[in-house]
Amino acid sequence: MTVQHSDSILIREVGLRDGLQAEQRFIPTEQKVELARSLAAAGLQEIEVTSFVSPRAVPQFQDAKEVIKILGHPGNVSYSALVVNLRGAEDAIAAGVKELQFVVSASETHSQKNVRMSISEALAHGAKIAALAKQNGVKIRTALATSFGCPYEGFVPYDTVYTLMEKLFAMGIDRISLGDTAGLGNPKQVSELCRGILSRFPDAPCSLHLHDTRGVGLACVLAGVWSGIRVIESSIGGIGGCPFIPNATGNIATEDVVYMLESMGLATNLDQEKLLASAVFAEKILGRSLNSKQLALLKSRHCNN
Amino acid sequence: MTVQHSDSILIREVGLRDGLQAEQRFIPTEQKVELARSLAAAGLQEIEVTSFVSPRAVPQFQDAKEVIKILGHPGNVSYSALVVNLRGAEDAIAAGVKELQFVVSASETHSQKNVRMSISEALAHGAKIAALAKQNGVKIRTALATSFGCPYEGFVPYDTVYTLMEKLFAMGIDRISLGDTAGLGNPKQVSELCRGILSRFPDAPCSLHLHDTRGVGLACVLAGVWSGIRVIESSIGGIGGCPFIPNATGNIATEDVVYMLESMGLATNLDQEKLLASAVFAEKILGRSLNSKQLALLKSRHCNN
Repeated sequence: MTVQHSDSILIREVGLRDGLQAEQRFIPTEQKVELARSLAAAGLQEIEVTSFVSPRAVPQFQDAKEVIKILGHPGNVSYSALVVNLRGAEDAIAAGVKELQFVVSASETHSQKNVRMSISEALAHGAKIAALAKQNGVKIRTALATSFGCPYEGFVPYDTVYTLMEKLFAMGIDRISLGDTAGLGNPKQVSELCRGILSRFPDAPCSLHLHDTRGVGLACVLAGVWSGIRVIESSIGGIGGCPFIPNATGNIATEDVVYMLESMGLATNLDQEKLLASAVFAEKILGRSLNSKQLALLKSRHCNN
Repeated sequence: MTVQHSDSILIREVGLRDGLQAEQRFIPTEQKVELARSLAAAGLQEIEVTSFVSPRAVPQFQDAKEVIKILGHPGNVSYSALVVNLRGAEDAIAAGVKELQFVVSASETHSQKNVRMSISEALAHGAKIAALAKQNGVKIRTALATSFGCPYEGFVPYDTVYTLMEKLFAMGIDRISLGDTAGLGNPKQVSELCRGILSRFPDAPCSLHLHDTRGVGLACVLAGVWSGIRVIESSIGGIGGCPFIPNATGNIATEDVVYMLESMGLATNLDQEKLLASAVFAEKILGRSLNSKQLALLKSRHCNN
């Protein structure tokens, strides 16, 4: 894969999963499905729609099986699910998921708090999940959480990330997503880590999952893209964050990422008007204003009319 | 001047001018002065505090003379003023201003709408203002508005900017500020234009004055800094915008720029806690929440305590 010099960027939508997991109020299944379909209609080809976790831990995803079943497998889009352990992976595959993402933390403390496992245990689960996925013809991806810093342990050394990535690719992982779970990354760090990764794993697919907790989310996306990363994960309307980290709200809004990339001449192959309509719908089902600059601009246009 | 490789960035604060000019309600002189002094206490060395324009055009600055007089000339900070014509420059110099900034647009239509002059007329005024400033030992700077695009004319060719800069430097202008008046710039454009400028005028001081209208403000700052620009203009709390351009609200918040640069190891020599206190004070005197990520984080910390 020689994506570094391409002028097109793949956007992977995570709002329905990373966004909704922080939502206290249960969003009805049919609204989740409608949002997923509107995102697909805007051209998104990869949409993470749910998580197979304990309904006690995250009640929002008690309808994971149903969401996957209703959405099915249209040809133009992959509706995927997150899992944090082998049990979740088994459930997801049984439900018909064709693309799985599981989580490994780059920090021991965050790993314990997030999935109640050590990094080694999470990797062992990961190896079993990867094997299970391969047996079932399911794509398998990994979110490497806290790649850019841990709220408990601070800076995560680049070598820690490289070593974990090596182990994950050795399991046959299709793509690794570098997660800035607590929004601690800065553009210099993103640039250095991405360049380090692409020099060590030039053919290995990587994506960036950055948060805008401290306002530098889009600057970090820019740093990643300029370093050669060609897959960016974002959340419609900017909904979400990690419920296990205080103040880690603020995913990057898909429509803001797309505006920036398209303004620079990088093709996302997405329909910006339809994306904005999806963001408006996300606001409607969540019943509040979302943190997206494109939504703010839309509202100010309406005020002036 | 060989600033390109330095690890320190000068922040020029414009909130009291570019911020307040969009405020309908008159802010009492003593509050303006208190805000200016709190910004200086945070370490800001260049603060644009007012504008010598017709009080009918911008009633907010009817106290320009008084603000300048009260603030005086402490050794550690330069309190400057904006002017749009020769009359304003004469008034400012008479009031004791030691650093002036005047505006030239890079687009004819914006020039007419903003200062009711053609670009040529604005340049002619500029030459007289520059001569007057030099005679009086006053520093003279220029804001080159709409350098990254005009809301009426669209994209502004790089050559238009280069040609205007050449004319301005020939007048003896001390520094040129490239203004993204309508927030139309993108990081690729900022990078290309800044690199083009620094290759043509390697010794000439330039600053960037970017707006966050479309959410890419900090990404554009990053692009500028990575291209070698070492002076960034921003507004405490992100207050402001251009009152003559619809929806051009959203200056970049000083505290957000400073967070990003410092997180990357670039020194601003500013006290981030004191800056945040200034932003809180700005919210207090404006009577509303301002659009700054650092302020939002501060509030969410308070909520959790």
